[in-house]
Amino acid sequence: MSEITQRRLRAGIVGGGTGAFIGSVHRIAAQLDSQALVVAGAMSSDPARAKASAEAWYLDRSYDDFRKMAVEEAKHPQGIDFVIIATPNHMHFPVAKAFLEAGIHVVCDKPLAYDLEEAQELARLVEERKLVFGLTHNYTGYPAVRQAREMVQKGEIGEIRKVLVEYIQDWLMDPIEQTGQKQAAWRTDPARSGVSNCVGDIGTHGENLLEYITGLKIKSLCADLTSFVAGRTLDDDANMLLRLENGGKGVLTCSQVACGEENNLSIRIYGSKAGLEWHQQNPNYLIVKPKGKGWETWGRGQGYMGEAAKDCTRTPSGHPEGYLEAFATIYKNVCADIRRVKSGQAPQGGYPTVQDGVRGIQFVVKAVESSKKGATWVDL
Amino acid sequence: MSEITQRRLRAGIVGGGTGAFIGSVHRIAAQLDSQALVVAGAMSSDPARAKASAEAWYLDRSYDDFRKMAVEEAKHPQGIDFVIIATPNHMHFPVAKAFLEAGIHVVCDKPLAYDLEEAQELARLVEERKLVFGLTHNYTGYPAVRQAREMVQKGEIGEIRKVLVEYIQDWLMDPIEQTGQKQAAWRTDPARSGVSNCVGDIGTHGENLLEYITGLKIKSLCADLTSFVAGRTLDDDANMLLRLENGGKGVLTCSQVACGEENNLSIRIYGSKAGLEWHQQNPNYLIVKPKGKGWETWGRGQGYMGEAAKDCTRTPSGHPEGYLEAFATIYKNVCADIRRVKSGQAPQGGYPTVQDGVRGIQFVVKAVESSKKGATWVDL
Amino acid sequence: MSEITQRRLRAGIVGGGTGAFIGSVHRIAAQLDSQALVVAGAMSSDPARAKASAEAWYLDRSYDDFRKMAVEEAKHPQGIDFVIIATPNHMHFPVAKAFLEAGIHVVCDKPLAYDLEEAQELARLVEERKLVFGLTHNYTGYPAVRQAREMVQKGEIGEIRKVLVEYIQDWLMDPIEQTGQKQAAWRTDPARSGVSNCVGDIGTHGENLLEYITGLKIKSLCADLTSFVAGRTLDDDANMLLRLENGGKGVLTCSQVACGEENNLSIRIYGSKAGLEWHQQNPNYLIVKPKGKGWETWGRGQGYMGEAAKDCTRTPSGHPEGYLEAFATIYKNVCADIRRVKSGQAPQGGYPTVQDGVRGIQFVVKAVESSKKGATWVDL
Amino acid sequence: MSEITQRRLRAGIVGGGTGAFIGSVHRIAAQLDSQALVVAGAMSSDPARAKASAEAWYLDRSYDDFRKMAVEEAKHPQGIDFVIIATPNHMHFPVAKAFLEAGIHVVCDKPLAYDLEEAQELARLVEERKLVFGLTHNYTGYPAVRQAREMVQKGEIGEIRKVLVEYIQDWLMDPIEQTGQKQAAWRTDPARSGVSNCVGDIGTHGENLLEYITGLKIKSLCADLTSFVAGRTLDDDANMLLRLENGGKGVLTCSQVACGEENNLSIRIYGSKAGLEWHQQNPNYLIVKPKGKGWETWGRGQGYMGEAAKDCTRTPSGHPEGYLEAFATIYKNVCADIRRVKSGQAPQGGYPTVQDGVRGIQFVVKAVESSKKGATWVDL
Repeated sequence: MSEITQRRLRAGIVGGGTGAFIGSVHRIAAQLDSQALVVAGAMSSDPARAKASAEAWYLDRSYDDFRKMAVEEAKHPQGIDFVIIATPNHMHFPVAKAFLEAGIHVVCDKPLAYDLEEAQELARLVEERKLVFGLTHNYTGYPAVRQAREMVQKGEIGEIRKVLVEYIQDWLMDPIEQTGQKQAAWRTDPARSGVSNCVGDIGTHGENLLEYITGLKIKSLCADLTSFVAGRTLDDDANMLLRLENGGKGVLTCSQVACGEENNLSIRIYGSKAGLEWHQQNPNYLIVKPKGKGWETWGRGQGYMGEAAKDCTRTPSGHPEGYLEAFATIYKNVCADIRRVKSGQAPQGGYPTVQDGVRGIQFVVKAVESSKKGATWVDL
Repeated sequence: MSEITQRRLRAGIVGGGTGAFIGSVHRIAAQLDSQALVVAGAMSSDPARAKASAEAWYLDRSYDDFRKMAVEEAKHPQGIDFVIIATPNHMHFPVAKAFLEAGIHVVCDKPLAYDLEEAQELARLVEERKLVFGLTHNYTGYPAVRQAREMVQKGEIGEIRKVLVEYIQDWLMDPIEQTGQKQAAWRTDPARSGVSNCVGDIGTHGENLLEYITGLKIKSLCADLTSFVAGRTLDDDANMLLRLENGGKGVLTCSQVACGEENNLSIRIYGSKAGLEWHQQNPNYLIVKPKGKGWETWGRGQGYMGEAAKDCTRTPSGHPEGYLEAFATIYKNVCADIRRVKSGQAPQGGYPTVQDGVRGIQFVVKAVESSKKGATWVDL
Repeated sequence: MSEITQRRLRAGIVGGGTGAFIGSVHRIAAQLDSQALVVAGAMSSDPARAKASAEAWYLDRSYDDFRKMAVEEAKHPQGIDFVIIATPNHMHFPVAKAFLEAGIHVVCDKPLAYDLEEAQELARLVEERKLVFGLTHNYTGYPAVRQAREMVQKGEIGEIRKVLVEYIQDWLMDPIEQTGQKQAAWRTDPARSGVSNCVGDIGTHGENLLEYITGLKIKSLCADLTSFVAGRTLDDDANMLLRLENGGKGVLTCSQVACGEENNLSIRIYGSKAGLEWHQQNPNYLIVKPKGKGWETWGRGQGYMGEAAKDCTRTPSGHPEGYLEAFATIYKNVCADIRRVKSGQAPQGGYPTVQDGVRGIQFVVKAVESSKKGATWVDL
Repeated sequence: MSEITQRRLRAGIVGGGTGAFIGSVHRIAAQLDSQALVVAGAMSSDPARAKASAEAWYLDRSYDDFRKMAVEEAKHPQGIDFVIIATPNHMHFPVAKAFLEAGIHVVCDKPLAYDLEEAQELARLVEERKLVFGLTHNYTGYPAVRQAREMVQKGEIGEIRKVLVEYIQDWLMDPIEQTGQKQAAWRTDPARSGVSNCVGDIGTHGENLLEYITGLKIKSLCADLTSFVAGRTLDDDANMLLRLENGGKGVLTCSQVACGEENNLSIRIYGSKAGLEWHQQNPNYLIVKPKGKGWETWGRGQGYMGEAAKDCTRTPSGHPEGYLEAFATIYKNVCADIRRVKSGQAPQGGYPTVQDGVRGIQFVVKAVESSKKGATWVDL
């Protein structure tokens, strides 16, 4: 038994300082299954905020600068095993590059990078360094989602004909970026967010979920992006028609201005044998609609669920797991791979990787291209 | 008080013989509020079936031929006040024409006609004869739908940004038209159905509902129609992007091959002040999502509902009304207008008319045109 | 073929004049399937209101007095085949007696009578005269309810262990009987309502539904009745423990003062093989919870439903039927039996009868007795 | 700033070894907010299993014996600040006693003890030693539950009239205790479970939730306990009528044999101003039913939620929190009090304590007493 199997992994974090809810999400998720403990961080570019954030989390080591952190942790005898990147989009690339070059494994928030060139460069680097790179498309960590994927793989849904995906929110229905809301400010800023706000932030989750569950690639799309709120240069809403590689058709709609919606990510898949339906806001249940029978509601934690769902289930049925637990599953899978790689074994995957990140950026770029051409069809 | 206000109206029916569920729906709906009684019919082109159907309904008079019925009823001292047209699409025009020319008011199933030319000719004829013409876009008869429309009209939803409409079923997911199912046979047959099956049969309900509630016209659309089931020449599925006259955006998806779906007509409307959501399969409730507050579920029959909803409410809250009651509301409104016209008063409307029928056919024609051009944008 | 099979039945109504919603409910329900037409009425004890009500319904004959109506209709060549009793409780007995003695079949609202003596007298009279007597425990007319009963009968639920029934409303949460609300006034008045308000009005529906679906008798009960609203002598709320004849246990709770509840009649049945759940406010669906499998939602109108449900289904799945349709099913079943009896055939039942009415009154009397003894156990 | 505010607390655990799901629940919950880390344990009475369990969790110190653990940890320079008790019921008392006497704070699973004497002795000991004692009535840690309590406290619900509580499951619907299922074995064994199985295990959660939210005491109860599964001496089902101290009435039903139910804890509260409804299986939403208005669904994480809910909210609305997060809230509150006490400040509470535990045992004892007397009323 190697040393790496006898202890928690040590994690560091870049970004995610006080005020950014996603920072705590990453910390809780990384630590939830006791496979890792966050011990170091460069949590803000503002030194005082970095220090205060690290103290609030009881970290052992706090840095002002992520490049310094990468170098020093690589040398430290109790140095971190992996880094968590929880910064705005435009910082994903430089941070990831610094840690990969220091030989440190990475878990990065999505979208992978600011543009396609950066994304491809990261993919190249990961390949070259043989490091583990997890991308937190966290919704793939829900047991019901993994169950859905397994059912499609086993042929229980039949040939897929139609897929309806939506991800709708309302938090940007007013121009809160003009009143100092930091999350809104960077997401609506092309310099920090990239070519898209809404499609990049949430549309990609829809694309990833669709391809993850169905195992099908989107072949082409026709996207109509809109900026509803005055003064915004990037999209805050999008509707898309999709054509899948198998001849199936689909719709993806996403919005940050849909009044009254919280975080409504939903997917419906219609095959020749059954339909599937899942709603992130009630995530413990998967609705199965077999041909000629009543609708079935399958519960997380039940004995009839498949192996993929059971592997990421922590509590019995009826004891709901939520967003943090799904997020934690990504970390659990990544930690297992880091242990494997550190022990000289081959990684096994099971979580979104840098390749999924490249795919996501391609999707965003193509959606924007389609919309700029007047919402015409483009191949993906 | 004129005679016409002192008795039930007398109705006739063309089509709807035994086996066609829509026949009974029209009869029940026409009679539900005791404003009319069906007394005569040409219920089938097959004389024996016409006779048997009329007997099953205890009709006073049965005809083998609708043209003869129009002529004779116009002369009969107890002749019908209006005719119900419940035939396949391609017969709407000749039947409506025959009765309009005989001076008899009409209630016709949708879509209005086989093609745009017929639809426009009917509109012209109705205008010329000053007759009442109701089109059974029955879903506009639900109290919750009328409530939604009233709330939009009063400005309670604000400027509408996004509309998502869907109408999905699974009854044609197999080629049942090849095994003698009559409803399926005529709907999938271009000679009887027109240029579209799915968009014409159910997509138009979505279009009508969207324009009815929002008061906005669809300005242009980009439609991707598909025939999923082998051997079918007409569409059994469609996805469309919509642009509304006010700058709002939308999606309309309809399908007859979505495994496990019953008759799922749903609409979600997002404005600058509130969101609205209605599901035909649980039709007594309207979900209102006001900005910055909890979701509200408004119940049919409650004191806080507006006048439009109250006018078509028959039972107290919690005593569900359904499809037949909504359908009956169209008849109730039409009967009131027939009484007005027969009493020399001006009609007041409040139900879908021949003009809505022309609009619906335009929508179907344009959706088909868009799809044939490779799913590109066309103006409506 | 006898004459009675070649025409609609003719119905009369006592009570149900303008303002009493239950009057229209009975008329719509009686006529919905075109098996009967209401042609005569004594719709109010107030002659002017009786006349206006009859005119609003286009009735052929209006009476000021129900006794006169019974006598005259019995002699009339086009006299009524059955009478509908839609009066307050205390009038059920004299009206039913008058028409039974005139040889006219009866459909009566529940509870059957003012007290047990009256109820038993009516049962005796029905037996003696060999007349059809339908009691409108209308909730037994829902297809999902009949499906539930059939599943229990077929043993698909197994041995029943636990039943939870509730019927909760809020319409009497304030003393509206003091401000002229007629429905509230007679229901809360012991002289017109009987020994109980809440248990008699809605608790009996719960009891009837439980025994109807499970086929089990309530053996004993322990009831705690309360009058929450000041100035009320009769109960407006009740909670009961139940013991069933097979050793099963249950709870029945009913209320007219449960703030925010509309007409929430729900039942849950737990057997050794499956659970069942039905909610009147979303009545088209029956939830089945088979052991070791996902929850199933069975839809009215689906091919997998049993014969009992299919027999009372009018529209395809997804085209919701509601309260009026369920009510109409009772009438459809009663009309079929009246035709049988008038044709010299044996009645077949399938609807609640005078015997169910006697049982209901016993239940009410025993619940009141239990509560008066301090909420102790009494046998039923 | 004292040392205790500058580090995570150190926790130990007794029980909860591999195979007992509740062990992981406690660990995850204790650590979730980074306020504590589990470092030591006596996780099983079987030494090998104790060791393996501790290694799986990467604990620093493992013990074979909880008494030894108490003594040694009290002396250790890096000793634990508090102990978690996750054993079967009959061990709660000796373990709690050992650690309290060693001056170590305690978090104990419910029910508090095997019988009332033990419970009262623990309460005495906690009082004497001035130690923090948290009882994991974890459902009080849900934000929606705290919101409900706050709304009641602020008078927004009005005078409470009726409360309906249920906690129903099906995991004991077969005699799995006879086939080696450990959780079932000890719960159905009077020697380890106490005088009740079902009421003690889950009925108490219902009682606690009712009193927690309403702020009202149950004054008396009438309970009908049943053992449905052959061979079982303790109850696996119970129905109870409740009378509250303010004149309100209620029903509590609990079951472990209700086929198809997962972990269905639900509560409905009806006041003179509004109704409230919460379902543990969809815990992020609180349903509010204000008088004369539509039903409202309040979402965890929304700006309109009150302080009590916000204090225990980790993720934005629409990003569901679940069972583990609610459990973690108890730990977060307890940890804050331990820091206060260790810093010489007064504890502030906000979590279930030893007093709630005594109350819970009284409730169980009285329910059993009532049932043994034939389901008659007893005061609580």
